[in-house]
This record gives sequence, C-alpha cells and structure tokens, in this order.
Amino acid sequence: MIVGVLGGGQLGRMLALAGYPLGLRFRFLDPAADAPAGHLGELIVGDYGDPLALERFAVDLQVVTYEFENVPVQCARELARRVAVSPPPEALETAQDRLLEKTFFQKLGVPTPPFAPVDSPDDLLGAIGRLGLPAVLKTRRLGYDGKGQRVIGTRQEAEAAWTGLGRGPLLLERFVPFEREVSILAVRSSGGATAFYPLVENHHREGILRLSLAPAPRLTRDLQAQAEACAARVLESLEYVGVLAIELFEHGGHLLANEMAPRVHNSGHWSIEGAETSQFENHLRALLGLPLGSTAARGHSAMLNLIGAIPDPAVVLAVPGARLHLYGKAPRPRRKLGHVTVTADDPAALRVRVDEITALT
Amino acid sequence: MIVGVLGGGQLGRMLALAGYPLGLRFRFLDPAADAPAGHLGELIVGDYGDPLALERFAVDLQVVTYEFENVPVQCARELARRVAVSPPPEALETAQDRLLEKTFFQKLGVPTPPFAPVDSPDDLLGAIGRLGLPAVLKTRRLGYDGKGQRVIGTRQEAEAAWTGLGRGPLLLERFVPFEREVSILAVRSSGGATAFYPLVENHHREGILRLSLAPAPRLTRDLQAQAEACAARVLESLEYVGVLAIELFEHGGHLLANEMAPRVHNSGHWSIEGAETSQFENHLRALLGLPLGSTAARGHSAMLNLIGAIPDPAVVLAVPGARLHLYGKAPRPRRKLGHVTVTADDPAALRVRVDEITALT
Repeated sequence: MIVGVLGGGQLGRMLALAGYPLGLRFRFLDPAADAPAGHLGELIVGDYGDPLALERFAVDLQVVTYEFENVPVQCARELARRVAVSPPPEALETAQDRLLEKTFFQKLGVPTPPFAPVDSPDDLLGAIGRLGLPAVLKTRRLGYDGKGQRVIGTRQEAEAAWTGLGRGPLLLERFVPFEREVSILAVRSSGGATAFYPLVENHHREGILRLSLAPAPRLTRDLQAQAEACAARVLESLEYVGVLAIELFEHGGHLLANEMAPRVHNSGHWSIEGAETSQFENHLRALLGLPLGSTAARGHSAMLNLIGAIPDPAVVLAVPGARLHLYGKAPRPRRKLGHVTVTADDPAALRVRVDEITALT
Repeated sequence: MIVGVLGGGQLGRMLALAGYPLGLRFRFLDPAADAPAGHLGELIVGDYGDPLALERFAVDLQVVTYEFENVPVQCARELARRVAVSPPPEALETAQDRLLEKTFFQKLGVPTPPFAPVDSPDDLLGAIGRLGLPAVLKTRRLGYDGKGQRVIGTRQEAEAAWTGLGRGPLLLERFVPFEREVSILAVRSSGGATAFYPLVENHHREGILRLSLAPAPRLTRDLQAQAEACAARVLESLEYVGVLAIELFEHGGHLLANEMAPRVHNSGHWSIEGAETSQFENHLRALLGLPLGSTAARGHSAMLNLIGAIPDPAVVLAVPGARLHLYGKAPRPRRKLGHVTVTADDPAALRVRVDEITALT
C-alpha cells in the first residue's frame, strides 16, 4: 500500500522510516524539489493548489495524510473526495486559524486563556478593556515558531502591534504567566481506539522549540488526566484519525490549551527511542486501522533540536544514550536540521547528558 | 554521504532505515529490478560482475559495504581499489569457502569441530577414518539456509553424499551433538574500537533460522567471554570494520565456531528494538568511524522470521510487545518475507508472547 503524504519535510521522512517495516510505501507532494522526504519515497514536486500535481499525487493512493499543517484545506478536501484523508480536513482547517481553534476548544470545554477576535483598532481596544494587560496579539493564520505574535504590555503599544501584525484578522489573548509549556501527543485509530503519550515539557528559544523532556518532570496523575481529557474531547469531536498534538500552558496546577497540530509533532520525536511505539508508527497504525502500539515511556528522554547548524556527529554520539536524527537539509539560520534524543534510566543522569549535548549546539 | 551497498535485499533495506537518521544516503547494486532495498535508495540493476554496472555504482561513493555474502570477491576487490570497502574483501573471501573459513578459525585458535578437506572419494573415506561417524559433508561454497550439506551416519551413505553434493570440492566435519546453536554479533569500527552484543540462541527448521532469543537463555559470563574471545580474534586478525556474525555450537559448556558472516545478520535483527543500538546502526557507525553505540540488551527479545507467508498484521500487532518488519518481497515458499520482534521485561512473559506469534506463522 502507498501512503500519500502532503508535505515532504522531516516529519514525512520520519513517517516513511517508521512505515517501511509495516510494508508501506510512500509518495510525497511538496513544492520543493529537494524536500527531505524525497530520498525515502516518490516525490511529486508541485504546489498544493496545482490540480495536475494533485492528480499525479492521488493516483492509486488509498490513504493520504499530511506532515505540514499549512496545506490548503481545499487541497485536503478535494483529495478526500477520492481517498481517505486522515486526520480529517476539518482538523486542519481548525488548527490553521487561531480563532477557530480557540473557539473550538471553548465549545468542547477545553480550557484556554481568555481570548477575543480583533478585526479593527476599536476591537483591539475593546478586547484590551475586557481581557486586561499584558496580553498577546496574534495573527489568526500562518503563525509558527513564534512568528505572528506580539506581547502588548501597555495601551500605548497596542497600535504598533496592530500595524506590525498586518492590521488583522487577529486575536487577542490574555497573557498567562504560565510556569511551563507542556504538550500531549494523542492518537486515535480509524477503529476508534485511543492512546495518549505521557506529557512532555517543552522549552523554546526565540520562539523555536529547543528541548523536550519526556515524561515531563514532576508529572502528576492529575496533570496527565487533565491533558488526556482535553485531547480525548478533540479526538472524539472530530472523529479524528492519526496523531494529534496539543500544546498547553501549566498555570497553578491547571492546563490551558494554547494550540493543536493535526499531525505528528516535534515534541513527540523523543518517542522514537523513548517510548514503546513512536508517534510516527502509531500515526500510521491509526490510519491503517491496525492496533495502536503502547505509548508507555522507556526510561527518561530528552529531545534537543539542532537549529541552523549540525554539531560533529562523532562528538554527539560519544555522549552515552545519545541518538542522532539528521533530516538531510541544507543548513540555514533558524532552520531545524535534525534532533538528538538522549535517554537515561533516571532524570539525574539524563540532565548530565542533556547538558553535554546542549554545550554542542 | 552516499553509502554503496552490494546487494539490495532486506539487510540493505534495514541498513538504509538505520542510516538515514545519520544523514546518509544509499545506493544499492543488485541483479533484481525489484530488490527490496530499491524503495529506500538508488538501485543500480546489474550483475556484480558487470563492469558497466560497477562503474555506475561506484561513482562518488566514499564507502562500500555488502549485505549479501555471495558477492564475487573480485567485485569487492575491484571496488576496493577506488573506495573504502568494509568489511574487508578478505573476510568475504574467507566466509565464502567453508574450508578457508575453518582453516582460518583454526589458525586463530578459535575452536571448531574437527574437519578435513574432501576432494575425492578417497579423501572422504580417509576423512571418515580420522574423524569418525556420524559426520557432516558440506560443499565448500554457496551453502546457506541448510543447503549444501548431508549428514553421513554410515560408511554406506558416504558415496551417495559425495555424489549428491556434486563431487567436491567438499569438507567433512565431525558431527557435534551440540545442545544449541548460538551466535555472537560483534562490531569493530574503523578506529579500532570493538563492541559485542549478548549471545543469541537460534532455532532452525528445515535449515532456515526461525527464532532467535536474545540474550540467549541461561547465558553465563563464561560463555559470553568465550564467544567474545573468538570474535575479537577474527576482528583483529582481519582489521575488520563493520558488524561480524559468528554462529557457534554450544557443547558441554564449550563453544565451537560453525561459520561466520561478514555482514549484519538475521540473528541480530532483534537488536532494532531489543538493544540500545541496532546492529544496522552500529555497522554504519563502524564504517564511518563514529563512536559505536551501546550493545546492551533492553529487556528480553525474540525474533521470529516470517517464511513463505505473512500473517495478518492486525493480529500480529495485537500481541503486546510485538513489532512487525516486512521486507516488501513477494511471497514464495521458503522465502524470508519479514520478521517479528517481541520484547518483554522477563523471559516468562516473552515465552507467552513468542507462543502467540508462533501460532500465527
């Protein structure tokens, strides 16, 4: 069976690495001729909106998924007329628009920071009045890696933020002085079975994920249960199939949903070595209706992104428990070129190893 | 960097799956246009002796290895004139001829069953006189999966065996009533570092490996040390680079070397899930001079080959701890189509799971 993947980046590459042992083959659609997944399957080079490229992509596919969340929803919907597209295009549509997404969370009873739509300077002032300051002004679409948002500390900063973010459509959120960001990776199979990975603690720099610790330090059963309840509601509501990631803020013992990604996720890369079954394999099992694999952690893991430059592999691999994952991408500032997973039997040993890798990156 | 692999079977496929995360790319040379590794890299279709195919294969390669041990030695030697070929062609040459191999073991002090060359009916009778009966008559070349050998129980059976095996060149070995067959996977890097996986217990049916248990049940430190000593002598003597497998008979607390394979090996497939670092990744690390990864076992593992037919993946994956590895090959009797690895925290749980999988195959 050939799995069609919209997007040919590193997530597609890791899906293919997990999928060949299941007897699958892969076809990718990506606008870039040097897309990293291209070495691992057939690559159709074309825009997501190009009907001819979509036609070539769709031939003989029984299942399509995406590894890039800014695929045009229209593209996913058109494909869904002829082949199973998972996760559902509705999940893609919801995740692409921060207002839709937050409204969707709210409707399901998934807690979020208070928010309001902002389509004009007047809206903005009104929203500041209701939500208070500081607050975060965000574009509704195409925000990622910390792009498309501004913190507003005073009313005087509001107009500059409005202008700086392109004058709408925007969203204002109350600034939550959260203690940490965590994420949950959840998976639902086409047969309806669900599974949840242990919560992960995420650390960003310049808006880009740098480090994930799995399971999250000081993870309580209550916190895990809160996160699973949020994820379960999203999965059921959308009749979701595949892996879903939700980023959450932990604040005073409670979790607030920040955003979701309807795909395998950077904060789940640790699962390749650190869990009984990786997020990539479980995503594929879900699509194919196969039994989901155990999501239990194996020891303690950390995932460190390699951003902009790749350290000497010989030095990385000399660190006990370190595993290298390169994506076959040309170095460029702020570009995710690979990641390192470090595993250890206990958190203290993990900390030492993480520090060694951090010193190299 | 592009790694050239002579042979495009399942071992090549699993090398590629392990190598992409290290930033490698792969090129395979195989006579079959549908070679299983072809989906995972560039496939040059051609005979190993075809100079034009070798020329196309060798372009821009910095390192060549093999995943098939009956590659003509001449092919490996020619390539070695222009690119690093690992393991060394001498290892290939030795492993391809059972007499060379046994003589080599003997020279290194690696214990083997007593043996004698047999090039004529007179040789055979003389060898029977010296070694006694029962004994095993084997072809010197191209034996695998139990082919190319006959057990001789009486002098009357000698002539039929001589004729049946093509009238030489042959080898007679004393039949050893061994308690079990085990194998050791060893690895030596281009920098000279070595590492050894725990011994594995192997079970065959109709001459084909069916089940490997890792670590081998009732593995003692003494037995492991004996095997490591054998492997270390072979590695050092050949200035070997890469993974080496040696199959050994355990008999009365002692190990006797049966044969070696200068490549990743079926009895090492368990290491993908069952060891800290898989044999495939360590083979590549060795070739590249990278630090070798830990060869320690993670819990208890069993590897079951899927021969001739593939059970329903949904049923296989419903067994806790089971992982499926399909090779993308068309089913054919006696053909290795894939394997299942089962892991468990203790041998008793493993046994139950192995029985469940065995019932499916």
